Amino acid sequence: MASIPTTPKVSVSQITFNKFLFSPNTRKLSFPPSIYFPSTSISTSILKTKTAASSLPPSSSPHPSVTRPVYVPNKISDPNYIRIFDTTLRDGEQSPGATLTSKEKLDIARQLAKLGVDIIEAGFPAASKDDFEAVKMIANEVGNRVDSEGYVPVICGLSRCNEKDIRAAWEAVKDAKRPRIHTFIATSGIHMEYKLRKSKKEVVEIASSMVSFARSLGCDDVEFSPEDAGRSEREFLYEILGEVIKAGATTLNIPDTVGITTPSEFGQLIADIKANTPGIENVIISTHCQNDLGLSTANTLSGACAGARQVEVTINGIGERAGNASLEEVVMVIKCRGEHILGGLYTGINTRHITMASKMVEEYTGLRVQPHKAIVGANAFAHESGIHQDGMLKHKGTYEIISPEDIGLERSNDAGIVLGKLSGRHALKDRLNELGYELDDAQLGNTFWRFKAVAETKKRVTDADLIALVSDEVFQPENVWKLLDLQVTCGTLGLSTATVKLVNADGEEHVACSLGTGPVDSAYKAVDLIVKEPVTLLEYSMNAVTEGIDAIAATRVLIRGEDQHAPTHALTDKPLQRTFSGSGAGMDIVVSSVKAYVGALNKMLAVKQQSSTERVSTKRTPVSA
Amino acid sequence: MASIPTTPKVSVSQITFNKFLFSPNTRKLSFPPSIYFPSTSISTSILKTKTAASSLPPSSSPHPSVTRPVYVPNKISDPNYIRIFDTTLRDGEQSPGATLTSKEKLDIARQLAKLGVDIIEAGFPAASKDDFEAVKMIANEVGNRVDSEGYVPVICGLSRCNEKDIRAAWEAVKDAKRPRIHTFIATSGIHMEYKLRKSKKEVVEIASSMVSFARSLGCDDVEFSPEDAGRSEREFLYEILGEVIKAGATTLNIPDTVGITTPSEFGQLIADIKANTPGIENVIISTHCQNDLGLSTANTLSGACAGARQVEVTINGIGERAGNASLEEVVMVIKCRGEHILGGLYTGINTRHITMASKMVEEYTGLRVQPHKAIVGANAFAHESGIHQDGMLKHKGTYEIISPEDIGLERSNDAGIVLGKLSGRHALKDRLNELGYELDDAQLGNTFWRFKAVAETKKRVTDADLIALVSDEVFQPENVWKLLDLQVTCGTLGLSTATVKLVNADGEEHVACSLGTGPVDSAYKAVDLIVKEPVTLLEYSMNAVTEGIDAIAATRVLIRGEDQHAPTHALTDKPLQRTFSGSGAGMDIVVSSVKAYVGALNKMLAVKQQSSTERVSTKRTPVSA
Repeated sequence: MASIPTTPKVSVSQITFNKFLFSPNTRKLSFPPSIYFPSTSISTSILKTKTAASSLPPSSSPHPSVTRPVYVPNKISDPNYIRIFDTTLRDGEQSPGATLTSKEKLDIARQLAKLGVDIIEAGFPAASKDDFEAVKMIANEVGNRVDSEGYVPVICGLSRCNEKDIRAAWEAVKDAKRPRIHTFIATSGIHMEYKLRKSKKEVVEIASSMVSFARSLGCDDVEFSPEDAGRSEREFLYEILGEVIKAGATTLNIPDTVGITTPSEFGQLIADIKANTPGIENVIISTHCQNDLGLSTANTLSGACAGARQVEVTINGIGERAGNASLEEVVMVIKCRGEHILGGLYTGINTRHITMASKMVEEYTGLRVQPHKAIVGANAFAHESGIHQDGMLKHKGTYEIISPEDIGLERSNDAGIVLGKLSGRHALKDRLNELGYELDDAQLGNTFWRFKAVAETKKRVTDADLIALVSDEVFQPENVWKLLDLQVTCGTLGLSTATVKLVNADGEEHVACSLGTGPVDSAYKAVDLIVKEPVTLLEYSMNAVTEGIDAIAATRVLIRGEDQHAPTHALTDKPLQRTFSGSGAGMDIVVSSVKAYVGALNKMLAVKQQSSTERVSTKRTPVSA
Repeated sequence: MASIPTTPKVSVSQITFNKFLFSPNTRKLSFPPSIYFPSTSISTSILKTKTAASSLPPSSSPHPSVTRPVYVPNKISDPNYIRIFDTTLRDGEQSPGATLTSKEKLDIARQLAKLGVDIIEAGFPAASKDDFEAVKMIANEVGNRVDSEGYVPVICGLSRCNEKDIRAAWEAVKDAKRPRIHTFIATSGIHMEYKLRKSKKEVVEIASSMVSFARSLGCDDVEFSPEDAGRSEREFLYEILGEVIKAGATTLNIPDTVGITTPSEFGQLIADIKANTPGIENVIISTHCQNDLGLSTANTLSGACAGARQVEVTINGIGERAGNASLEEVVMVIKCRGEHILGGLYTGINTRHITMASKMVEEYTGLRVQPHKAIVGANAFAHESGIHQDGMLKHKGTYEIISPEDIGLERSNDAGIVLGKLSGRHALKDRLNELGYELDDAQLGNTFWRFKAVAETKKRVTDADLIALVSDEVFQPENVWKLLDLQVTCGTLGLSTATVKLVNADGEEHVACSLGTGPVDSAYKAVDLIVKEPVTLLEYSMNAVTEGIDAIAATRVLIRGEDQHAPTHALTDKPLQRTFSGSGAGMDIVVSSVKAYVGALNKMLAVKQQSSTERVSTKRTPVSA
């Protein structure tokens, strides 16, 4: 049973907390005009993305001339600045089916740097050699690219509270300009009793000695999390947090691991910790809110109002179960209401890169965002279709509170028709650049060839079509196998039969045919006859990209290999069976389905190859150091 | 420009509000054991639904012996009881693409009554004859089915503030045992100026005279909403609300129409209204929170803590843009934390019907729920796949806060395998009953035939397979056209060609063939040659229902007819162009795609037929009475 904590002392910080929640500001209803009155006109309901840095208009942030405070691990010079800690690559990647390749992780990390997140949690290096290498690559590449204003993201590696994990985390991140180790141990009665089987005293000793150990390696930026803090005894929390501060922790992250708290409770938790933990004034307090009750955004903001100055979030709110607080919601609330309602809080995020980040994470993880998802859902800026927006809204401000342009989503005045079958390679490249894609010559060549094929058969080639085609090209793993030809017969009258021709990396062509219960089943069986990898198809989905029967269909599959090398799950210490997603786009749904399947197989084979060439002994020690 | 309201007076109710948010309870971390320690064991990660009332174990509500307070429009005898007002059929149906047929609306209304919602907003009767008839049917059927405990949902119809609308709403709902008229007018500066073009004085006069008019028709349950209350001047709000109370309003609904407020602000708004509106003690205050910033659940709860005793929500949180507060999140927070954190608040909802309600709304509206949606997402109760839950969790309470059984989602111990190819019609019927489906003989016959076909070719027939098959059967509109046969050839080598044979309601068979850019395109073109209805395909999506390459695929399409009779949009007074969804399930994706398309066409033809036989003059008057 969980121990029942005593009621904590009434704390000084409660006053601060109340001040934020109930300051006179909270009762004014005056809004910055820019939020309600976006400056461009809407003339169609078609939306397109635009995130190319080169063509971005100046940010419309409430802090347009924001100078990001100089990074010092344990303090922030501006008391209103909120650090954004993105854990899409660590907590998000633990979602069922969200496995990412190293290349995908690097792409996402680059996009996070474009967004301007303060800290990128790049992974859990001790989980497997692959995870280690991915974090190291991100630390080296993204963690050393300092921009003209001195910005470079902190690269953080997660570790359990043991020397081996911490050493692995340090080895992975130490080459970044700003490396951080994040270590955690459970502090709730239920977790200590059932998961750790340790006494409170043992847990404090482990935590504090492991933070010291991390510092002793040369890391001056150490984050500590008491897992399941939301259900931990208050007095014990103050004690363990005080001890890790003494041991050298610079950020204390307070996770609501099971997503059980309400905003008032979570704010109170942060306020209490701020008021009662010895030495807390020398460190940064952070929030980490799971979304099990749908309250993660509100809880995160409540934590910030109560004194947290780092918030842990993921793109699209992905993560285990109901996911985490989503970066786009937290950042946009702070952007829209920070100045007037949240006591002047602000972040360093360039919100115009949100749409691209959202699409990339959706594409790579295979975790679809629902149409009514706040900020990034397909309907978030759409009214009932068929109603012309200008006609409907006598004034845009009547319904919209955020301008789509704020998140990098641009309305098109030409219904998104940008290119026709006479358009050349140069026009395609320019348009793709405007859409935020930088392609190398080979990628551009392939995309151009496919664009022409679409333009030949489809009346209108829209931005959405282009994005599907180019995503299919640039968001693909390296080819091991490639689809050359496919022929299928199916229907209600006969037996489905498919013939496929694949070519491997060495240029060898293989042909196979198979019967099946439907066209995709028969085609996949034919692929299996060639590739000979035992896999289970876990998910299969398809969406038309644009309107019209002749639309391009984007297919996504998720597979699990049957003999995979399994990395370790951070929280459970158990092997984590990896799954691989693949996507394909095209006008023939059977062809796009096969492309998606071959893509997922390639992703699995790439990871497998990586593991087998680099594999080291990865027997894990349990949590005790 | 929006007028800038003055700072409201410090209000008495702020103390009450603070008391709820910061009562000593909020700082205790004692939890009811039932929340953390669900009583059944987990042995696989496969989940199945179970909502059949006959087999439901007793509710594990914190108020197991709850007697729902007797319904009186303007008061609730128990100060802790929160009324749940579901607007899935009105606000939810206004989501892009969510158009429902009358039969679907009736099905959803029945499911809402199973859930035990206090008020069903069944539609906007003045929008069109179809909308009127659907509300009337729900009022007659669902609004008169009183259960053994005296429960029957209030049936509510929306109307703008004009006599014609109010009369239509009353005609539609008056035969229900508990009819309600809900009327609204915009009260924010920006809406009054740009949308209504009325002065404050005119707006107050219209509101108050229209509430009187509603009462004069014999309706003793009248709800009034000041649209965009979140951005309205406080003093003006108090004034207009005071006037409509005098005129006879019994519920005052406070919408955050643009989803701009934070929880503290929205709570303060409710608290201020409670403190400053003359006569407020004689009516019920209600919340209606849009989700544009991802805060709708928190805002709704904050409103309840500040004194609102009705909350307006939708299943799955659907609605325009980012949708509304979701019923399942609001209800589960109140269920899990109401007693300990929210001052004892509770609802009358039987949460075990949530999963079925969520699936039905997803199926009928075509609005997919994302995998990490709180409470009802596919991953909400799933940890990273491949990890055996019993093995991973030494104690379930370590990560779970809600038991899946609480929302009608049951874990299966046999990996969901329930029926094989030797199973008979009786076994199928029993299993479907257990899953919550009551089929008539014809539906059972069709489902059984299709079940046998699947069982012949597929190794395992799981509950998920059965649900897909039966949904395809029972969630279909009446047949106008039906697919008999289909033959398709496609691939990268040749031209896609499809031949389809359809039969109409008179039993006439029609055959057509067509070329296309892919198998679905060619098949749809062949269908078009037979059906001859001009439509635009807006969306097309497909998902495999279960794991494995031989899985059943469920296809969903959304079409828009080009010559439809358009009903009126409640908030904008503009024609609302209706769209129609169709779904199909089967092992051949081309076959299921054609079934979905024919289903959508049937739905459109059914609505069209209804309109043309029943159409009346539907010229609408503007908002002024």
